Amino acid sequence: MRGKVYLVGAGFGGPEHLTLKALRVLEVAEVVLHDRLVHPGVLALAKGELVPVGKEGYGEKTPQEAITERLVALAREGRVVARLKGGDPMVFGRGGEEVLALKRAGIALEVVPGVTSPVGALSALGLPLTYRGLARSFAVATGHDPTLPLPHADTLVLLMPLHALGGLKERLLERFSPKTPLALLARVGWPGETVRLGQVGDLPGLGEGLPSPALLVVGEVVGLYGEILGNSGP
Amino acid sequence: MRGKVYLVGAGFGGPEHLTLKALRVLEVAEVVLHDRLVHPGVLALAKGELVPVGKEGYGEKTPQEAITERLVALAREGRVVARLKGGDPMVFGRGGEEVLALKRAGIALEVVPGVTSPVGALSALGLPLTYRGLARSFAVATGHDPTLPLPHADTLVLLMPLHALGGLKERLLERFSPKTPLALLARVGWPGETVRLGQVGDLPGLGEGLPSPALLVVGEVVGLYGEILGNSGP
Repeated sequence: MRGKVYLVGAGFGGPEHLTLKALRVLEVAEVVLHDRLVHPGVLALAKGELVPVGKEGYGEKTPQEAITERLVALAREGRVVARLKGGDPMVFGRGGEEVLALKRAGIALEVVPGVTSPVGALSALGLPLTYRGLARSFAVATGHDPTLPLPHADTLVLLMPLHALGGLKERLLERFSPKTPLALLARVGWPGETVRLGQVGDLPGLGEGLPSPALLVVGEVVGLYGEILGNSGP
Repeated sequence: MRGKVYLVGAGFGGPEHLTLKALRVLEVAEVVLHDRLVHPGVLALAKGELVPVGKEGYGEKTPQEAITERLVALAREGRVVARLKGGDPMVFGRGGEEVLALKRAGIALEVVPGVTSPVGALSALGLPLTYRGLARSFAVATGHDPTLPLPHADTLVLLMPLHALGGLKERLLERFSPKTPLALLARVGWPGETVRLGQVGDLPGLGEGLPSPALLVVGEVVGLYGEILGNSGP
């Protein structure tokens, strides 16, 4: 019996952003432990038993330890297991903890990269993160706790910002002018996809009524987004 | 005649990291203008005419304006064109300039995200960019010009660092202790793949003789990489 765990990135949005390797793993895995927010079109490609784990938005979640124990137990039974996570498995979502726990348990393990949402959701809309003369760097952090320090980079992408837009505005104003261009993107690649363009000073009102999951993008490069999206012409 | 341009991310490394949508575009595009560093296994999946453009390492390159003009001309002839770039098209590589130029020329355009190398090359090796209690954020920049300011984040990933490791060390020491863990990854997913682990203080010597393309990763989370890679046991 040769059990193995694949930590697989589902990418963002629908199944078209899945990689060829991720598809191959979904076709051979006997059990697929998946985050609740993975797109149903991706889950439909799995041939094995589907087991939802992990958190559902801001709500109920399976404890991380229980997920890791289950992965170890299944692999020790000789099963081929896919642990399917949104985006890329090594960006947020505690994938690193799963890797270390599996290594320490002596379980055969492979990580399959995915298109991470802070890059892919922008890219799918044609929105650059870097741009010659405007943005030489980008940084990614979660936005759900506005008491945390923000990273510094020309372009800043914050995940899960919607519940904290007031606090994030204060944080952003420590570094950016109120006129700095800002975008809120909600549900890119899902029904209800919405993009709102504004400035740092437009927070928190700009986010009113937006559905999750969402991204906040701030920096001078965002000033190009209106023309790219066709909201304003040349 | 309905010409169209797809800006397609080839991902990093071999064809297994290509997305299903990128594969579909490569199968329908009549002409594929590709960066010189795209993996031959990816190019082999293209059905149309292959045209190498863009820069070759640090050397010869096609001027950006010539690439954009060629994309516009082909689309106006009614051709379906793929512009295939390493990683994700909206991260470095001047993809944003191509998007704006095509929009301004009125060309139908779609961007197909890819697995960006600063995330995917780490992820494929099981190396986390974020980790609870160690790294809440990451930033990405190019490392080829050490006179530029570096972004601030818990984990910092620099592309193309090899020709500037001495200058980057000085920059990193403005923010990190000389004992901060650091990794150099070369040619991940290609023949000659190499990972070297050390500390900021080990630069520039740690990079000696490494082949391009390479990544530099620095931050406390890198302290976990030895155990993950099996270089040191628990």
